[in-house]
Amino acid sequence: MPRYRLTVEYDGGPYKGFQAQDGVASVQEALERAILGFSGERLRLQAAGRTDTGVHATGQVIHFDLAKPWRAEVVRDAMNAHLVPDPISILSAELAEGDFHARFSATGRRYLYRILDRRSPAALERARVWWVKTPLDADAMHAAAQALIGTHDFTTFRDTHCQSKSPVKTLDRVDVARVGEEVHVALAARSFLHRQVRSIVGTLAEVGVGRWSAERLAGALAAADRTACGQVAPAHGLYLTGVSYDPPSAAGDLTEP
Amino acid sequence: MPRYRLTVEYDGGPYKGFQAQDGVASVQEALERAILGFSGERLRLQAAGRTDTGVHATGQVIHFDLAKPWRAEVVRDAMNAHLVPDPISILSAELAEGDFHARFSATGRRYLYRILDRRSPAALERARVWWVKTPLDADAMHAAAQALIGTHDFTTFRDTHCQSKSPVKTLDRVDVARVGEEVHVALAARSFLHRQVRSIVGTLAEVGVGRWSAERLAGALAAADRTACGQVAPAHGLYLTGVSYDPPSAAGDLTEP
Repeated sequence: MPRYRLTVEYDGGPYKGFQAQDGVASVQEALERAILGFSGERLRLQAAGRTDTGVHATGQVIHFDLAKPWRAEVVRDAMNAHLVPDPISILSAELAEGDFHARFSATGRRYLYRILDRRSPAALERARVWWVKTPLDADAMHAAAQALIGTHDFTTFRDTHCQSKSPVKTLDRVDVARVGEEVHVALAARSFLHRQVRSIVGTLAEVGVGRWSAERLAGALAAADRTACGQVAPAHGLYLTGVSYDPPSAAGDLTEP
Repeated sequence: MPRYRLTVEYDGGPYKGFQAQDGVASVQEALERAILGFSGERLRLQAAGRTDTGVHATGQVIHFDLAKPWRAEVVRDAMNAHLVPDPISILSAELAEGDFHARFSATGRRYLYRILDRRSPAALERARVWWVKTPLDADAMHAAAQALIGTHDFTTFRDTHCQSKSPVKTLDRVDVARVGEEVHVALAARSFLHRQVRSIVGTLAEVGVGRWSAERLAGALAAADRTACGQVAPAHGLYLTGVSYDPPSAAGDLTEP
């Protein structure tokens, strides 16, 4: 059975997260319905990141096997046709090796968090950014965030409902930068805990508005105590932008938009 | 009576255009309702551009007079509070001279048209861009568009329902450029005819996909015949980005986002 690997963009707004659950709209359910629609095959796909309710993606990666072989381009176009009117788009599709697994083969995941930092609320980007009207010091946020790099117990920055066995993760990168009226936080790690990115970004915003010092952020991490977390940033500013696989195949390293 | 000049951003999607009409949702009606809400004054505002159904703005300019004086910042913040949940945001407010008129004092209007030019449909930007899946030659579009610069009879590129007395307009600038997966068309003129931008962009797309030559575009302009127009691009890719006034006041020249 040929295995297909797809890169997927979606607006998380209408969905109760990526993962299929009975009786609620999920990105996975919409994708599996599109696969059924063009191929007649009812199956369960695998995804690199089980994004939370309302979280978007520009570079989610999924895989699935089909009994009947199709050209990868046909899979891409046929799924896009069947996904109408869902705000989900198959950006690319390719044949993958039989041992490729979208979730378990992933060696890196990248997220972007967008904050609109201005006095006036978002109109056009309302469902795409977190509006923070207080001016943020992006440089202070970036400097403080560097304390999070490396291998730590991230209990402070994970949801109490997180089902991961261990709170220990290795954060490879947190970059905070001002981009026009927005402040962007880009994060990279092999994997993340539940709500880890939103917990980190919300707490970094405390530094950005001057309520928290860099030392307090480092102390909150060291405390390994969920109650030491600052605010949790809302879902609609968060994007899964890419997934890395090792060894990188020709299309293995996704390019951010 | 103090006169207020405001810069406004909005998502045109939910509205039957800017201009107030009985019984339908308009941006103007929402703005006048917000003014009434904070000030108790029922009035008619004036706007630089009467954008069409579904057209967005990042730099619309309006003015109105209030019987009671308020600080401009209070007008901005109070209107934003009263505009919830409309996707309309007051970006800035300032006191204007008594002879300032958002529409009649305007000496230039700037529009941006966004085309998403890729094989896969838009998911996140679906309501913000025109999806054209055929690869566009942006350089050919730009070169052909230069024939439109200057003073011409734009009958070919105006809607048959256009109420402007004359079809003669002066186009100051049409720049076509590729920006990542998008092709952006930026236009500037003192004023535009009804659907002129969308008629020009739709016809430029004919050049971009190779169906039309630059000569055909120039010939269509010269024909001054609406039936010589190519396709008309959809409303949801169009943005009123700024309005100029002469002599420029301190905040007179709006900065594009």
